[in-house]
Amino acid sequence: MENDKNKHSALNEKAGITAPEIISPVVVKNIQKFRNKQPSSKELIDGILSGNITALSRAITLVESTNPEHLTKANEVINACLYHANKSVRIGITGVPGVGKSTFIEAFGKHLTGLGKKVAVLAVDPSSTISHGSILGDKTRMEELVKDPNAYIRPSASGETLGGVARKTRETITLCEACGFDTIIIETVGVGQSETAVHSMVDFFLLLKIAGAGDELQGIKRGIMEMADAIVINKADGDNIKKTKLAKTEFNRALNLFPAKKSGWIPTTTTCSAITHEGIPEIWKTIDKYIKQTKENTYFDTKRAEQNEYWMLETINEQLKLNFFNNPEIQKLLDSTKKAVQNDETSPFAAAQILLEKYFK
Amino acid sequence: MENDKNKHSALNEKAGITAPEIISPVVVKNIQKFRNKQPSSKELIDGILSGNITALSRAITLVESTNPEHLTKANEVINACLYHANKSVRIGITGVPGVGKSTFIEAFGKHLTGLGKKVAVLAVDPSSTISHGSILGDKTRMEELVKDPNAYIRPSASGETLGGVARKTRETITLCEACGFDTIIIETVGVGQSETAVHSMVDFFLLLKIAGAGDELQGIKRGIMEMADAIVINKADGDNIKKTKLAKTEFNRALNLFPAKKSGWIPTTTTCSAITHEGIPEIWKTIDKYIKQTKENTYFDTKRAEQNEYWMLETINEQLKLNFFNNPEIQKLLDSTKKAVQNDETSPFAAAQILLEKYFK
Repeated sequence: MENDKNKHSALNEKAGITAPEIISPVVVKNIQKFRNKQPSSKELIDGILSGNITALSRAITLVESTNPEHLTKANEVINACLYHANKSVRIGITGVPGVGKSTFIEAFGKHLTGLGKKVAVLAVDPSSTISHGSILGDKTRMEELVKDPNAYIRPSASGETLGGVARKTRETITLCEACGFDTIIIETVGVGQSETAVHSMVDFFLLLKIAGAGDELQGIKRGIMEMADAIVINKADGDNIKKTKLAKTEFNRALNLFPAKKSGWIPTTTTCSAITHEGIPEIWKTIDKYIKQTKENTYFDTKRAEQNEYWMLETINEQLKLNFFNNPEIQKLLDSTKKAVQNDETSPFAAAQILLEKYFK
Repeated sequence: MENDKNKHSALNEKAGITAPEIISPVVVKNIQKFRNKQPSSKELIDGILSGNITALSRAITLVESTNPEHLTKANEVINACLYHANKSVRIGITGVPGVGKSTFIEAFGKHLTGLGKKVAVLAVDPSSTISHGSILGDKTRMEELVKDPNAYIRPSASGETLGGVARKTRETITLCEACGFDTIIIETVGVGQSETAVHSMVDFFLLLKIAGAGDELQGIKRGIMEMADAIVINKADGDNIKKTKLAKTEFNRALNLFPAKKSGWIPTTTTCSAITHEGIPEIWKTIDKYIKQTKENTYFDTKRAEQNEYWMLETINEQLKLNFFNNPEIQKLLDSTKKAVQNDETSPFAAAQILLEKYFK
């Protein structure tokens, strides 16, 4: 395996692929096509639509680039792919470090490819710039999925803002779907606001938990449990089985305290073992049932349309703020104004008004 | 009582006070001072700092005005009051309609004035423009508090946006504090995002509940339970006592599932009756304990400084968005762009980019 991996990265390097994606041996030969040249938008689009993984990877690298020329090209590719996208199921998976996300995704992903599905695994991890990709970093836990020709694994885009990372991932979904992937898994590390971002780009949101270890008390970040369409308690194996059953009851009770969801879906709590694979098939059945139910009651399409609008408005909002706070006049004044506001020397609203007047002048 | 009220409003009208505040007979004589003239900023400031309720009401009306001249004057008054403000305890109270918020505030407020406190009751209700003040509207439930010279009740400011209503209430807090009110109660109706706004302007957040009636299942809006520093189950009287005890156990269990709070405070669940007054004194004791604890661990001051900064940034953000979406060029394009994005004809990010380019040009 280690040798295989080295071979891949040597090939990737030769092909000019610098992004840290992992490519199965089966598709390595495709790299030849794109070696040593910058493919045109048309070449990328044709490649993606014919299921070429290398074209997909190159296009994702464009999406992730900060070069404005690349942005224009990326938008061309994405807009051409849009018509062919949207035919997948998008699943968000979150859980604190230690719940076994990687092993779970390995087992769940293999189950899905076993059902004939094409699975893309993406990630949203704004901290990856610092930690150099703390999620999807440890590929040794996804050995099987990495080698699977029907799976594509791409680590988190890097970036300084969650908004930036989220945008790149959201656009990568479109590219993967146009490339024929029908099941998109988006992993998030459970830090800060990244769940909200992932929740806003998926159809189904799964919260992975483990029993005990004080996890019930401290592991759930504010609001996350309320986003979950399913809570899955992992590591239900060996001595742990009894504890996970207790945790299941506890979480079920807590879920009952939340208001009914707009989707009409009643969140489920199940247990599974990524090692024995017990409970893994049931998770897909649950998701499948959810998709059928929400397609029938039209929530599925309504939500996707709302999500699209959300991302447009979020992007506008983020850019407006960036433009404001990067304004040299504002930067000169901001620190002292903040301090005055914190110390009650001026009202927050009067201070905002002064800064806004400066900006719009 | 009905006659009294009519007399007040006749007097208010004569005094040129058009806002629907309720003024106790004791302070009606103060109105004379401000009758038939527009007081200057200095007169208002002097009036507020000497505890004159009429001056306070006039200043609040200025804060609530949409006239730009009034805004400048309001900022003058607020900035002068800031130094004298901040010495109160700010309590947010939320709960769905039917939990008995008004009767609770009446009982709780009377308990506080009985302890020698000066209590101001404000409200954040962005829906009041439509419903003409659905909260603090039914004064018959606050008969006692209305007549209490140590209480001041002011209905929600009206406005089209939550941001606008919240700003007005946040500034009203400053005025009330400078006027000598040491306990500020801010009621919210529990619709949409108004809890978040209220949570961001108070020291202590109280969620009012009742037992049964399917309320456990449906009454808690997303994220609200996690904001609560205390859950109080009201109507613990008569046949209801057993049910409220059960509900208390249930909510306590649920609260345990949430992560520890930055304040170090462990949220409490108690029961009370606004009719028998059972449990009311304990609620103040709980809040008092919270204030002492968070002042000791410095969280109290840190939070207030953070809240001030939050309101400054929120105001900037809101104004940036308003300016963008009120731009005639953007208004022309927005609907068709939204539709294209919803229907996957263009990516949310490409669409945002086009609108932003138009705007910044």
